[in-house]
Amino acid sequence: SVNPDLSSERQTASFSVERLMALLDGGAEQTRIRRAVVEAIESDPVFSRENQYFQTQNERYEAAVRKAVHLQKKMHEMGWTENGPEYKYIYRALSGDVAFLLHRVFMRSISVLGSDKQIAKWIPLATQHKLIGSYAQTELGHGTYLQGLETTAVFDTATQEFILNTPKISAMKWWPGDMGRSATHTVVFAQLYIHGKCYGIHPFIVQIRSLQDHSPCPGITVGDIGPKMNFEHIDNGYLLLKNVRVPRENMLSKFCEVQPDGTYVRQGSQKINYFTMTTVRISLISDEVLTPLMKACTIAIRYSVVRRQSKLKPGEQEAKILDYQTQQEKLLPQLAAAYAFHFTNDYLQELFNRGYREIQRKNFDMLPELHALSSGFKAVITQHCTAGVEICLRACGGHGYSLLSGLPSLYTKILASCIYEGENTILLLQTARFLIKCFMAARAGQPVPPSVTYLAAVKHGKCPAKNKLDFLSPDIYTEAYQHVAVRLTSSTAAKLQDLIQSGVKKHDAWNQCTVQLVQAAKAHCHYIAVKNFAETVEKLKTKAGIQRIMKHLCDLFALHGIFSNTGAFLHDGYTSAAQMDMVTASYLDLLAVIRKDAVPLVDAFDFTDQSLNSALGSYDGQVYQRLYEWAQKSPTNQMSPAYERYLKPLLHNTLSKL
Amino acid sequence: SVNPDLSSERQTASFSVERLMALLDGGAEQTRIRRAVVEAIESDPVFSRENQYFQTQNERYEAAVRKAVHLQKKMHEMGWTENGPEYKYIYRALSGDVAFLLHRVFMRSISVLGSDKQIAKWIPLATQHKLIGSYAQTELGHGTYLQGLETTAVFDTATQEFILNTPKISAMKWWPGDMGRSATHTVVFAQLYIHGKCYGIHPFIVQIRSLQDHSPCPGITVGDIGPKMNFEHIDNGYLLLKNVRVPRENMLSKFCEVQPDGTYVRQGSQKINYFTMTTVRISLISDEVLTPLMKACTIAIRYSVVRRQSKLKPGEQEAKILDYQTQQEKLLPQLAAAYAFHFTNDYLQELFNRGYREIQRKNFDMLPELHALSSGFKAVITQHCTAGVEICLRACGGHGYSLLSGLPSLYTKILASCIYEGENTILLLQTARFLIKCFMAARAGQPVPPSVTYLAAVKHGKCPAKNKLDFLSPDIYTEAYQHVAVRLTSSTAAKLQDLIQSGVKKHDAWNQCTVQLVQAAKAHCHYIAVKNFAETVEKLKTKAGIQRIMKHLCDLFALHGIFSNTGAFLHDGYTSAAQMDMVTASYLDLLAVIRKDAVPLVDAFDFTDQSLNSALGSYDGQVYQRLYEWAQKSPTNQMSPAYERYLKPLLHNTLSKL
Repeated sequence: SVNPDLSSERQTASFSVERLMALLDGGAEQTRIRRAVVEAIESDPVFSRENQYFQTQNERYEAAVRKAVHLQKKMHEMGWTENGPEYKYIYRALSGDVAFLLHRVFMRSISVLGSDKQIAKWIPLATQHKLIGSYAQTELGHGTYLQGLETTAVFDTATQEFILNTPKISAMKWWPGDMGRSATHTVVFAQLYIHGKCYGIHPFIVQIRSLQDHSPCPGITVGDIGPKMNFEHIDNGYLLLKNVRVPRENMLSKFCEVQPDGTYVRQGSQKINYFTMTTVRISLISDEVLTPLMKACTIAIRYSVVRRQSKLKPGEQEAKILDYQTQQEKLLPQLAAAYAFHFTNDYLQELFNRGYREIQRKNFDMLPELHALSSGFKAVITQHCTAGVEICLRACGGHGYSLLSGLPSLYTKILASCIYEGENTILLLQTARFLIKCFMAARAGQPVPPSVTYLAAVKHGKCPAKNKLDFLSPDIYTEAYQHVAVRLTSSTAAKLQDLIQSGVKKHDAWNQCTVQLVQAAKAHCHYIAVKNFAETVEKLKTKAGIQRIMKHLCDLFALHGIFSNTGAFLHDGYTSAAQMDMVTASYLDLLAVIRKDAVPLVDAFDFTDQSLNSALGSYDGQVYQRLYEWAQKSPTNQMSPAYERYLKPLLHNTLSKL
Repeated sequence: SVNPDLSSERQTASFSVERLMALLDGGAEQTRIRRAVVEAIESDPVFSRENQYFQTQNERYEAAVRKAVHLQKKMHEMGWTENGPEYKYIYRALSGDVAFLLHRVFMRSISVLGSDKQIAKWIPLATQHKLIGSYAQTELGHGTYLQGLETTAVFDTATQEFILNTPKISAMKWWPGDMGRSATHTVVFAQLYIHGKCYGIHPFIVQIRSLQDHSPCPGITVGDIGPKMNFEHIDNGYLLLKNVRVPRENMLSKFCEVQPDGTYVRQGSQKINYFTMTTVRISLISDEVLTPLMKACTIAIRYSVVRRQSKLKPGEQEAKILDYQTQQEKLLPQLAAAYAFHFTNDYLQELFNRGYREIQRKNFDMLPELHALSSGFKAVITQHCTAGVEICLRACGGHGYSLLSGLPSLYTKILASCIYEGENTILLLQTARFLIKCFMAARAGQPVPPSVTYLAAVKHGKCPAKNKLDFLSPDIYTEAYQHVAVRLTSSTAAKLQDLIQSGVKKHDAWNQCTVQLVQAAKAHCHYIAVKNFAETVEKLKTKAGIQRIMKHLCDLFALHGIFSNTGAFLHDGYTSAAQMDMVTASYLDLLAVIRKDAVPLVDAFDFTDQSLNSALGSYDGQVYQRLYEWAQKSPTNQMSPAYERYLKPLLHNTLSKL
């Protein structure tokens, strides 16, 4: 039975949850397929996550391997293929709790970087799991700065082999997933040396464990890097190489080849690599970043309508905590952000599909813009969503702090997204470099990519809003965001030029501007996200109920951004103090409006109880019952040897006399 | 041998680390005592934390009990007593990794709330550990709102007993530390009923487990609440009571007593309770909040001078990451905050000591101010320090994400401080209520407590700063903080009055102002913290080297607060845009200045390698070696059954045919 405090929230929905779900999924048919996948996965006990919060790192790893192996069978049974419409829902249905993800990266690397011959040799072996692959790039001493990698691959013309070494401790490969305990092969990135000359980083296929008994191959030291904040199910590994020899054919050679005599030949265009990297950054947004925030919102909002605490009015029943303005102000902006970034992701996907089509036609013009957008949005969305999950966790008080709420795991996992696939600050600076370049070009009258043409416009206007309702006009707030992005970019460009003109060296000048450059890059992305959300809402014209609530969320997303960062908008007087008070008023009004639809808005994310794995977030809202029943199953409720060993002697005063 | 990249940082210190350490400790003699305690604890293998990151929740609990029992012996051996100068350093030296902390709260409750007779009976039993106590207040359904607790204690005149019940699942006690597995007794807070009339919440001593075999007593259901984000070493418990009878003498009766015929007698002043609660909030700041931030700063800053990544200038060696402005901007404000709040804590301690002396003289005048300050600062400091630890973690990239860095545990533990002992938002609203009351009183010409007299002054001036150096003047920035605190308080008070005058009911009006009230409370505390830091620096006059660097940190703390919250200062034009640019310039300049002393500034916190328990933060800076050696010891490097069970059949293609 559903908790009446939760079911009452559903009865007053101002829109059709099913229709919104279809909008999020990209059509009702997609919803159907997704649900079928979820149903098939969740009804299979091998994929259960029931004991997850009680398991050790070793147990989590074993379960993930078991699931990965079982998944092969399941896919066959269900008739799911890697190119079928179901495929993209599998990972979500498993909540990512599965091994061999790097095996897929291993295969993708070979497909993208390997010659036709290499593809023909390795891909079938990998597909049939005659080997388990990994991807060994990051080292103890180098992550973001790939040029600094220290692993070496020296070509030996005599034997036609590469000799691989990790010559210093800092050169040791560190972090590769699936490598600590599972992988038999990996792609090692190393500095290529031929006849004493360094040709930079290249990829090599290296076997690291015996296919017979899984023992490390000669010259290989491999193991697991130990406990992490999350990802207990993944065996992130370390790898030392000591004079490990691989044949010449093992250097992935679609773009570069070493000929038998040691001649180095570069062929084809490496620009596609650039594109691959950006694709990865975009592809992680949905499953790794938006899904956790949507789950956190679902858990925290459902909990906030069944948790009653203190009284809003004396003499009345205790109030649902979501009726407190401070609780709304914590949770509803996160909900709005989840929707906003869902649509940003659609926008980025479409842009990338377009980019991919162009690239296939050998047109690489879109690459710089795509790189800047993927870098900036990867950073902005991961940062925003990580902060959002943390807010949801804290908003649930003590119960949010229990692992059984599901929120701690969501947080500790999403946090990693701020670091992997490019550390966020580094990525924002790449976006900023693009912005500064485009800004200079635009001001010089040169053409610039579409997403930055706005930088060309020199405006010194003021915000035209006259009352608080004006701030519910997308034109008004989008313009304000644009203004801030232009101002931050132009003022930082000016500072940079001033420093250089005053004699500061270019690289020092850049470093002295980086804090502000990061601000400019964030403002740029924030502007595009707001603009895109507003445009998306505009297109929903015909679906009245849905459009109205999406419009509210868009307004909230935009006004929350202004309210949380008033200085940027007030700075040059574009927005006046009186206008800022209107923003605040409209923003706070919106909270009360959206609060009414908060539960239907998270219901539309359509997470099953199994996928939430949360005592606070289940569809029926029976929070206390669930916490109690679940806690009783905890291994901490088994008899502890501490009683006989320490407590009993203490209480019975039979400890050796002090 | 110390990593040369780290030792070079120490050679250029602009001040004496030992002298700064003595300042932080409150004198060189205190430093000596502290070190002696640390030495005694760390040289005892029972107190080792070496395997902590590899242990399960059960193992952590057992180790904590073992340490708690062993500590009794150790204290006896060392001649340490609960009133001795060493006592306060023990918990820090153990990094809080010890059981029976609630046993002390149990004892304190009896001392504060019990009659002389009750104290005489229970305290000796507890002191000799003939029982293990706990403190059962929070319920599944109620945390912050104590009046809503649902546990009942009905007086039965016939048997002269109280009958205790947790009548609903939401009434179940939930979270009490030491209760899940260890405690034999607890203080239960319950609604007292006599002859059908409710007299509100009262404390009762209840035995929950047999002193013979530790089995639950009749009517008692007790257990552990399961896995949490941290605090694995503590057995937070649940407790159900079904017609549990305790004798009349078990109600703690210093302030209230039930006579044999059921007559309820209130005696003495309950105001002391009010004071106890505020004392607890202050007392946790040092060990639970500042220490973790100081450790996180130590780890992240030491790591940032041995980690080299990418190049600042082409052709040069890779740069220490602390030389990047963005890295400085992440870490150095956290360092400044650690110092700022250390001095805030001194200020609060002194205030509370004064308050205590007054209370002993039956003068309760200071209580409202002390309550407001303890609530506000508990919230502001825990929030700020939690965010700071998270920034330190992220600033260490992938290595920060490893449990072996020590940072994840610091984060997951400090996060709880935002929730326990009063949820932060609730606390800030209590401070805000005090501010609004004082503001109204002050404007009406009535006297108000010293910390809020500034609210009386109606000023409409502008910030007088003329160049960026002016913003290094404490008068300039302290005044700016004061202005913002007054503005936020007065504007929210005005909004509140407007709403009420326009017919909105008082409680609704309050709710509609809470987001802004929270802002006002934060601004008030921030102002006091800045002012106190500036005054502390002023008093350091004679100690030149120390004063100079403390002045820099004070400036950084103040300017970082402005830079991060420019809107509050720009809003009414008190600070102009041009002045804000000066703030930014001075702020960024300061980063480069303080960066030079960053390592000596964390060395002064004087954490041993054992207490940091971090592969990144050790005194010698041998980061990579330590990570590698430590990882090899991880249980994840033991043979996994997953190979034989799943990997081998997969690789050998002997899985049952698909």
